[in-house]
Amino acid sequence: MAEVKLLGFWSSPFVHRVIWALKLKGISYDYIEQDRHTKSQLLLQSNPIYKKVPVLIHKGKPISESLVILEYIEETWPQNPLLPKDCHDRALARFWIKFGEDSIGSITDIFLRPPKEEKERVSAIEKAQETIAIMEEKGIGDKKFFGGNNIGMVDIVYGCLSHWLEGLEEIVGMKLIEAKKFPKLHAWIQNFKQFPLIKENLPDYGKLLLHLQWRRQEYTI
Amino acid sequence: MAEVKLLGFWSSPFVHRVIWALKLKGISYDYIEQDRHTKSQLLLQSNPIYKKVPVLIHKGKPISESLVILEYIEETWPQNPLLPKDCHDRALARFWIKFGEDSIGSITDIFLRPPKEEKERVSAIEKAQETIAIMEEKGIGDKKFFGGNNIGMVDIVYGCLSHWLEGLEEIVGMKLIEAKKFPKLHAWIQNFKQFPLIKENLPDYGKLLLHLQWRRQEYTI
Repeated sequence: MAEVKLLGFWSSPFVHRVIWALKLKGISYDYIEQDRHTKSQLLLQSNPIYKKVPVLIHKGKPISESLVILEYIEETWPQNPLLPKDCHDRALARFWIKFGEDSIGSITDIFLRPPKEEKERVSAIEKAQETIAIMEEKGIGDKKFFGGNNIGMVDIVYGCLSHWLEGLEEIVGMKLIEAKKFPKLHAWIQNFKQFPLIKENLPDYGKLLLHLQWRRQEYTI
Repeated sequence: MAEVKLLGFWSSPFVHRVIWALKLKGISYDYIEQDRHTKSQLLLQSNPIYKKVPVLIHKGKPISESLVILEYIEETWPQNPLLPKDCHDRALARFWIKFGEDSIGSITDIFLRPPKEEKERVSAIEKAQETIAIMEEKGIGDKKFFGGNNIGMVDIVYGCLSHWLEGLEEIVGMKLIEAKKFPKLHAWIQNFKQFPLIKENLPDYGKLLLHLQWRRQEYTI
């Protein structure tokens, strides 16, 4: 039996947070794909409260919620740290993680669950652009990654803004993170996606496009 | 100049999270009360993104967001730990912190920002009771505190369910955490409030009632 197991769903950006963290730490694991509609006994037992992926099982003990798992991975396998050493820098990283958690969903929702009313849609886009401007100016700034020269926990949490948001932008035909308007965040997306361990661990783009299209229809029908 | 400063607002449960953590750690600090309507220059400079309390300033460096501050306090002053030592137990604690963060607001909102429609109000109460049942059975269980025999970070985060929720229940005349229905969580509330360092650091109940009443009217008018 493998020491580390990950219950996931292939298209989930939350599951990919855990995959990337494990890969960056060099931890081998058994990946167990879950069915989105029929919850497995293992999933129900491992995450009885939310019944959701990702779940990391280490030495038989399950842990749920992607951010909780990331902190667990960082504490259990300290090699290739995902958080800075200095306590204040760690607090800054956790601040940006919280900022991402609080805002990324409302950005992708513009595409996945667009408000029915045009006025609300316009206002949601304006709000998303204000949020992206904060990420651009105060978050990434002039650094290559949020954490500096290396990919860290903040980058992992914002990973959804790369592959997934780009897919949604393509489907809907509206670019939110434009190179002209948000050059720093746009460059970060390219740097993030091109980073070998990330690039090798992204879902197939064509398959993801179909999935996101289907998710979108599921809501708008 | 004090090494540690805390910018707060007297009635905020989020600010009290930080007060309790500092007191439990035995850290002395200067408390700087903020005006709810006129943001001070210090607050705007220290938390330019959210412009909200609490802000902890340590050695001149500001940190915002109560959960981020709690993790910072735990890492900076390791005495009287607020999180368990074992990595898996820490992950469980962080899971319950996340569960509380995701749900406590919707519980207090039933009183502070009640849905206008009766049907929606009933459904919000039902949902809140399901959430409280999870806290009761899976969270606190048969322990004195969420962390076991001692107050820890989870208790601190759930602190709002004591003094504040009780105040709201009194104002509205509806008891959500009834002793009969939720005996474990009800006992936890009493244990939490009676714990000396918490008891000495709660806002004045009469003053809090007036404040919560006013906050409620502010919304419903």
